[in-house]
Amino acid sequence: MERPKFPDETIRRLPLYLRCLNRLIILGKDTLTSKELSEFLGVKPTKIRKDFSYFGDFGTRGVGYNLHELVSEIRNILQLDEEWKIAVAGISNIGCTILDHLEFNQPGFQITHAFDQSPELIGETVRGVTVRDVEEIESELEGKNVKVALLAVPAIDAKSVANSLVSAGIEGIINLAPIFINLPEEVEVVQMDLSSELGRLVYHLTNR
Amino acid sequence: MERPKFPDETIRRLPLYLRCLNRLIILGKDTLTSKELSEFLGVKPTKIRKDFSYFGDFGTRGVGYNLHELVSEIRNILQLDEEWKIAVAGISNIGCTILDHLEFNQPGFQITHAFDQSPELIGETVRGVTVRDVEEIESELEGKNVKVALLAVPAIDAKSVANSLVSAGIEGIINLAPIFINLPEEVEVVQMDLSSELGRLVYHLTNR
Repeated sequence: MERPKFPDETIRRLPLYLRCLNRLIILGKDTLTSKELSEFLGVKPTKIRKDFSYFGDFGTRGVGYNLHELVSEIRNILQLDEEWKIAVAGISNIGCTILDHLEFNQPGFQITHAFDQSPELIGETVRGVTVRDVEEIESELEGKNVKVALLAVPAIDAKSVANSLVSAGIEGIINLAPIFINLPEEVEVVQMDLSSELGRLVYHLTNR
Repeated sequence: MERPKFPDETIRRLPLYLRCLNRLIILGKDTLTSKELSEFLGVKPTKIRKDFSYFGDFGTRGVGYNLHELVSEIRNILQLDEEWKIAVAGISNIGCTILDHLEFNQPGFQITHAFDQSPELIGETVRGVTVRDVEEIESELEGKNVKVALLAVPAIDAKSVANSLVSAGIEGIINLAPIFINLPEEVEVVQMDLSSELGRLVYHLTNR
């Protein structure tokens, strides 16, 4: 069966739904109505029903949603049953914080490679991964089936490191450097930058 | 003159344009065509022209865009001529990294308050700001005209700390905790979460 295309906003919410649903199952819950889920998830019932309606017909009227089915469905949509290998480029500051954050929050992803350009960091082991020189990105990643990278190097180095990542077969990049990078069309880039989000927040506060 | 509403994607790009344009001015540039700007900004000329077209008529055919006028206009749109005070709640890990990041990258914003719940951190000075107990959010922020907060506490505490921030008069929150928070309609919340962006990236990689 062809699955419908999910809106970006729904997709963004799924990982956080998943995290919360897993906790609820550990706490012994099996079935919850959208109203109950709303309390736990911090999202309005109408929005939950709308998001879940893309999955097909799940909820049972008067009984609610089966949490196990929801978890299995979300894992399936996000393709988390295969483990995604991740390369991190730039681990000195925000990159390292993100390694921590990811480790505790994200099933389905495993950081397998780390790169930096600082001589003090190269050769060190950070959360079980040996840090390699950014110069070795292509040779290290060759044939390793790593498709996703976090780019957390300083803005001035972002372009050249991103190009190495793409040459090494990376197909998707989360760019934490505060600069845009023009990459081939077929590479997916997600920009994640605090100044952008602050700018947007302030714009909405002053234009409402 | 009534200004048009800018699309979210354009607004998100403006802070990064601003950062790059300021650097170009320091390097002695005054006027650049959209093609030249494209090289520096890492954004396609068509997208730049579209983004800048919302400002009104700026570029001069055959000459290009006046960088000083662009900077002044972007600062004006993002309301950066007034300085925005920011409160950070949760400074132990990702919050602290973000303090650093912000300090170096973001004119127009100043971190004036920091809160945490860890006894080891309360009373310490982090980047010139004394860390206060999250219990004191309301009393500390009262009458201080702080409208924006970064929420970087652990997920389990996010709801109660967010409620304190809203009671203290905060109107916009960047939520770095990996959990949704249901707040009154009039509070703007921007969710900034790595697992959400990773989920979205992987979804697009597998559904194209």
